[in-house]
Amino acid sequence: MSYSRIVELEGHIIDSGMMGRCFGVIMDMDGWFSVEEFDIGTRRHEESYARMRVSAESIETLGEILHQLNQNGATLEDPIDAQVEPAPADKVVPAGFYSTTNHPTEIRYQGEWLSVDHIEMDCAVVVEPAPADERSSADEGHDANEPSAYTKTLNAIEKGDLVVLGEAGIRVHPPERPRSSEGSFGFMQGGVSSERPSTAQIGNVADAIEETKSRGGKVVCVPGPAVIHSGARNDLARLVRGGYVDAISAGNGFAVHDLERDLYGTSLGMDVETMKHPRKGHKHHIYTISEIIRAGGIEAAVEEGIVDDGIMYECVENDVPYVLAGSIRDDGPLPDTITDSIEAQNAIREQVRDADLVLMLATLLHSVAVGNCLPSTTRVVCVDINPATVTQLLDRGSAQAIGMVTDIGTFVPLLADDLLEG
Amino acid sequence: MSYSRIVELEGHIIDSGMMGRCFGVIMDMDGWFSVEEFDIGTRRHEESYARMRVSAESIETLGEILHQLNQNGATLEDPIDAQVEPAPADKVVPAGFYSTTNHPTEIRYQGEWLSVDHIEMDCAVVVEPAPADERSSADEGHDANEPSAYTKTLNAIEKGDLVVLGEAGIRVHPPERPRSSEGSFGFMQGGVSSERPSTAQIGNVADAIEETKSRGGKVVCVPGPAVIHSGARNDLARLVRGGYVDAISAGNGFAVHDLERDLYGTSLGMDVETMKHPRKGHKHHIYTISEIIRAGGIEAAVEEGIVDDGIMYECVENDVPYVLAGSIRDDGPLPDTITDSIEAQNAIREQVRDADLVLMLATLLHSVAVGNCLPSTTRVVCVDINPATVTQLLDRGSAQAIGMVTDIGTFVPLLADDLLEG
Amino acid sequence: MSYSRIVELEGHIIDSGMMGRCFGVIMDMDGWFSVEEFDIGTRRHEESYARMRVSAESIETLGEILHQLNQNGATLEDPIDAQVEPAPADKVVPAGFYSTTNHPTEIRYQGEWLSVDHIEMDCAVVVEPAPADERSSADEGHDANEPSAYTKTLNAIEKGDLVVLGEAGIRVHPPERPRSSEGSFGFMQGGVSSERPSTAQIGNVADAIEETKSRGGKVVCVPGPAVIHSGARNDLARLVRGGYVDAISAGNGFAVHDLERDLYGTSLGMDVETMKHPRKGHKHHIYTISEIIRAGGIEAAVEEGIVDDGIMYECVENDVPYVLAGSIRDDGPLPDTITDSIEAQNAIREQVRDADLVLMLATLLHSVAVGNCLPSTTRVVCVDINPATVTQLLDRGSAQAIGMVTDIGTFVPLLADDLLEG
Amino acid sequence: MSYSRIVELEGHIIDSGMMGRCFGVIMDMDGWFSVEEFDIGTRRHEESYARMRVSAESIETLGEILHQLNQNGATLEDPIDAQVEPAPADKVVPAGFYSTTNHPTEIRYQGEWLSVDHIEMDCAVVVEPAPADERSSADEGHDANEPSAYTKTLNAIEKGDLVVLGEAGIRVHPPERPRSSEGSFGFMQGGVSSERPSTAQIGNVADAIEETKSRGGKVVCVPGPAVIHSGARNDLARLVRGGYVDAISAGNGFAVHDLERDLYGTSLGMDVETMKHPRKGHKHHIYTISEIIRAGGIEAAVEEGIVDDGIMYECVENDVPYVLAGSIRDDGPLPDTITDSIEAQNAIREQVRDADLVLMLATLLHSVAVGNCLPSTTRVVCVDINPATVTQLLDRGSAQAIGMVTDIGTFVPLLADDLLEG
Repeated sequence: MSYSRIVELEGHIIDSGMMGRCFGVIMDMDGWFSVEEFDIGTRRHEESYARMRVSAESIETLGEILHQLNQNGATLEDPIDAQVEPAPADKVVPAGFYSTTNHPTEIRYQGEWLSVDHIEMDCAVVVEPAPADERSSADEGHDANEPSAYTKTLNAIEKGDLVVLGEAGIRVHPPERPRSSEGSFGFMQGGVSSERPSTAQIGNVADAIEETKSRGGKVVCVPGPAVIHSGARNDLARLVRGGYVDAISAGNGFAVHDLERDLYGTSLGMDVETMKHPRKGHKHHIYTISEIIRAGGIEAAVEEGIVDDGIMYECVENDVPYVLAGSIRDDGPLPDTITDSIEAQNAIREQVRDADLVLMLATLLHSVAVGNCLPSTTRVVCVDINPATVTQLLDRGSAQAIGMVTDIGTFVPLLADDLLEG
Repeated sequence: MSYSRIVELEGHIIDSGMMGRCFGVIMDMDGWFSVEEFDIGTRRHEESYARMRVSAESIETLGEILHQLNQNGATLEDPIDAQVEPAPADKVVPAGFYSTTNHPTEIRYQGEWLSVDHIEMDCAVVVEPAPADERSSADEGHDANEPSAYTKTLNAIEKGDLVVLGEAGIRVHPPERPRSSEGSFGFMQGGVSSERPSTAQIGNVADAIEETKSRGGKVVCVPGPAVIHSGARNDLARLVRGGYVDAISAGNGFAVHDLERDLYGTSLGMDVETMKHPRKGHKHHIYTISEIIRAGGIEAAVEEGIVDDGIMYECVENDVPYVLAGSIRDDGPLPDTITDSIEAQNAIREQVRDADLVLMLATLLHSVAVGNCLPSTTRVVCVDINPATVTQLLDRGSAQAIGMVTDIGTFVPLLADDLLEG
Repeated sequence: MSYSRIVELEGHIIDSGMMGRCFGVIMDMDGWFSVEEFDIGTRRHEESYARMRVSAESIETLGEILHQLNQNGATLEDPIDAQVEPAPADKVVPAGFYSTTNHPTEIRYQGEWLSVDHIEMDCAVVVEPAPADERSSADEGHDANEPSAYTKTLNAIEKGDLVVLGEAGIRVHPPERPRSSEGSFGFMQGGVSSERPSTAQIGNVADAIEETKSRGGKVVCVPGPAVIHSGARNDLARLVRGGYVDAISAGNGFAVHDLERDLYGTSLGMDVETMKHPRKGHKHHIYTISEIIRAGGIEAAVEEGIVDDGIMYECVENDVPYVLAGSIRDDGPLPDTITDSIEAQNAIREQVRDADLVLMLATLLHSVAVGNCLPSTTRVVCVDINPATVTQLLDRGSAQAIGMVTDIGTFVPLLADDLLEG
Repeated sequence: MSYSRIVELEGHIIDSGMMGRCFGVIMDMDGWFSVEEFDIGTRRHEESYARMRVSAESIETLGEILHQLNQNGATLEDPIDAQVEPAPADKVVPAGFYSTTNHPTEIRYQGEWLSVDHIEMDCAVVVEPAPADERSSADEGHDANEPSAYTKTLNAIEKGDLVVLGEAGIRVHPPERPRSSEGSFGFMQGGVSSERPSTAQIGNVADAIEETKSRGGKVVCVPGPAVIHSGARNDLARLVRGGYVDAISAGNGFAVHDLERDLYGTSLGMDVETMKHPRKGHKHHIYTISEIIRAGGIEAAVEEGIVDDGIMYECVENDVPYVLAGSIRDDGPLPDTITDSIEAQNAIREQVRDADLVLMLATLLHSVAVGNCLPSTTRVVCVDINPATVTQLLDRGSAQAIGMVTDIGTFVPLLADDLLEG
């Protein structure tokens, strides 16, 4: 048993993305369709037309699909009137009222399409049967003897206003995305946002890591120094020890901060737990480098027992390979750091080519360098507190990406808890 | 005279946007097409297939169109081999070499499609005729007796490497945009950026204002206090005087800062030209409010000659109406400020309903309030130094928008010069 | 038993802050001092001079104090030579080497003060006994027959270089803070940073709340809508239920998002747990407002059982008073929202005047409004992911403030765990 | 002729900075002082006391100095009553009313110090002669028979309220800066802000460059790729040609973008003037590198006439030396790029050691690298649109710094106009 209805699309329906969105709506909502007519405009400025039969297994599903198609600019071939009901009291709309978008809208009333005046978002639509009041007719030049429709905010609703309900008999005209070559005004789309549910997103990242590991995949972590400064060092060390990280791609600074924490209990001279700066703390950074140079490198320092804790330690102990790429802002550097940028790129390339999931944690430079070597098919998770960094990293056409604007100092602990204790 | 070729699209070509992009490419480049076969997948997970004839008026244009279609995932029905040429020296590629994307890529060599190993962005493709060298065959499991192809960075090119040229015989597989309902990894798109050519963008805004005014349109300006602090007050005043602003929608703080500048020469107590803080400067803000209250309002203060300069002054003198909407962070407020938020919204609504172009200048609160009242057909220009503000304001589906991440203190002077002197 | 030494300060030691810093160093490190001579420059450009005896209970403490004084520009009255030791190998410095600041520095060698050439941060100082090598003498015009001193980075150290150790015989000249009126170049100081240890900082906030509550103090919470969008709603509700919040000062939007979550399970139309957007989800916001208007307000909606969960619910159930201040960007608003900004300010004023600790959570507008009503003696905790917001809120001279740049969606859960489970 | 008055300071006047600020106020305002008594607390938690005679050449200047000292916590030895005057009408305060800070405040009335109740910023102080009204007495436990004082916002003033005027008889207690070791709440200070008068700041930078050049000084410019993307290339080229830049320290990317603009008219594939993306524009970046490699380097490319425009061109033509430091995110790189980070650091070190003024333009990596090599005495100008970058770069104790949060695409053109046409 199935139900169906004919809908039409008109205009720049292909290159504006309208057709794609409509087909997507139908399929996402478990409906299906057959295209009955399809005239494609084949040159610029030519419009297209499509008529299709939309079907679903229940009348309710079909109704919801039609509502969504309508919000995306499709129209029913054979429309019915919009339903209206008087407001029961001032400021109170009838249940199920239609809430507007900010797109040009028409409602069908007594067999005619009325354009909704003063369209704006999140309003009710009130129908004024003929004769219309003076105000709206004056405003928009309606014939005073004809019915009209206009928006009202909830607090402006008066008892008895005829308010439009439901979804039938309403036609919305979303703007068409202009061609990029048609001038300076563009159709803008927003970027990443920090206003996403944080712990739910962290759960998704944990799931992706679990899923990658369970099928034998390779997880590469690209951490910046902020991981250490923000107090997340032990948690990343736990993840390395727990087998969730197969390789680390970082810089000289990251390793020095990690090792400083082990040798002196500080990060850039600050005790990460008490947040105090011990006297001479500012020298710990350069002293750490000096100690590791003296030992001959990180692995030697671990073997000599000089380093017995932290992320680099866990890498050595658990045979997790790391690349430390040099940069012109480095102190030292450590003997392990590859100072030539071409050699460093080749090392990164070797390391990430077969990666299945790359975790970029609060470093722009290293994340860009790693991203440059990745095919677009590799999954990427990019975490930074600066939305611009997340945007820049994700703006490279990776097919599969999670971008998260959050605090690395809370992200890594919560991720480690989720994977190791969850 | 025209030239044509058959191309094919396969996969989720509609809801991934691939088809729309391909049609767009053809039409943007002054080609045309006819669809010869079109099988649309009508349920989720079903793939579609389209075959079309692409035409153009010159063989060069057709070649460029085919290249772009290829980069977007279309393939020639009837492919030819890719062209190769040996590198003339170490690190030197032949002119016209093919530079890779990061998408899975194949090149056609001796009648066969070879998958390009180690795909990454901005590399050359090198073909290894049979027998392949051990390294690439070991890596990817090729038969050592077959030819292979792989990426090389420019600095890794060795004299004699067979480098792929041109655009023929190359097949690129861009990722399909996953459905939103198919898991947490999304297809991310970047947001606004500050890395756009600033003076060229300002020129575009000026053109849009000129164009709006020349056809009798209405320009509404929504300025924040930063316009005053950043030293752009005189330039906005010039624009009001010059007739480029038909209404101002702002807050109490904006007006007080503008008036303080007139009464005391300071903005929040700082002399905007010398950047010094005169003693007692911090009191000027509250003293200004007190003076205007005493006069009975801004218009009265202008008439009494207390105020004789600035944006509010130009509004009064040039009959440019303004709405000052109150907020809980206001000092005072001025007698002109509408303290009730519902009344203020209604005043804004009245003011912007027939706007043709809205200039939002460095204020989030007032821009959102104004944006809430606008239909999606109104042109919007949004300028702020904070990319997140620009993103948030443009993320509301306005059909026609310019977003610009720049310094309001340099934007307004350059815009005023462009419009008034340009 | 105590040990003491005479130190001297010279220059603009008072208004540059040098004297204050030196006194602070001594007292922080449990030393004490007596001022033996003090000539204060009493007009601009006059320099001051102070000589004082610095004391401590151990020779080690005295040594550390003297080192710190030295780093802050004080000099020993009676200096000794700096200690030097040859480097044991290339790139290896002797243990305890002196690591430079970027301030002009002298070292005492054979009874003379040598200026250290090429001063830069985080280097070793190498002494070249007479005769100096050609390079440094050519560079800086030293007499080739005199000893010289210059910086070397760690990787440039050669075996046998005479490296300066310890802290004695070293004189550092930190820059004096120029007067604000002396031109456009200022002494810049950095602002808040996200690179602080996050969980340790959250622990501090929890301690401050515990401490406030344990002495009967009042905690006022100022939450923004991001608390709901970021998934932290249940955690803030837990804190209200647990008695850690004595009053809430928020806006219409915050309450609507909280109530939408209860009525429809979404926040701005998105399911905060699954991150999916149910069809019609975008209408939940306006429908929620409509439901609460119909019920007559939040308290009535709780009593009728329409609302049975969330932050506003816990406020009603636990008699935690709330102020909802209106704004021009509100939808609705709810009947509980105070739409007049003067009335709303008065309500906030009444609410926060006797507050002991104010928690500002991811809202600029409401935090500024609340901050305007607070005396400088009230403790303030300000949390936002945007450093500019935190800076702006803390830039008001509150005597007692914690500013934290972090993700509200991880901050509130971790804070609630710390207070309720810790 | 001079006028003087005795003032007193009490509390943690040295390490809180109070004394330094007071001395600074006197000297900045052209007064002078002699310290008559000075008891310094010599251990932690001990308070200090200072009594001094403050003098000025006019009674007005003395009055202003005393007012400022008072705002900073000093008190007159021999106080007089505050002046009060009744408000002439509702909401209208008498001219010259005292506007509050948010610090605890007392006013002297009838010979007694009254604490001002409900202190908050930007209010008037109203004195209630005995008997006080019930409300304030109930609130704060005053004896109903005693006079009291409290704050009122301007809009709450009622006709006849006794409003405090002027500056005499008022005592303000600013918070003392707590020692860093005394717990987690700190005295926060704001960072850089974009809300500064932009064109005035650019004028200051131009003055500093002029001044440096006029005394034969060396200006080093550290530009990032955003200089090119944002359309400022020709303006920086003008400055090089005009002799305002003595050396350039940049990266491979900067040079490639500059050269791409010359060879193909695009920057990262976009035409910077029309903002269009020509077909194949995305390949221009890698093609440019290939061309320069083929020519053998930038200088060779200029000599061959391949490059005849732009910043690198002007450097070659005007013998302005440049260092291009490599990084792991580079494409290519160009033959001129130093790929080893140690070698690159040494080249930078050589280049900037004798710099007098360093212009850091929209690049974090290169600015940090250059900053690491600078003594604290070098003047630094740092321009970036991201406040966090400016804060980080200035947070290194440079004695002489201008930080500016602005758009590099408008900054460089305006700077070039100022220097070359101004």
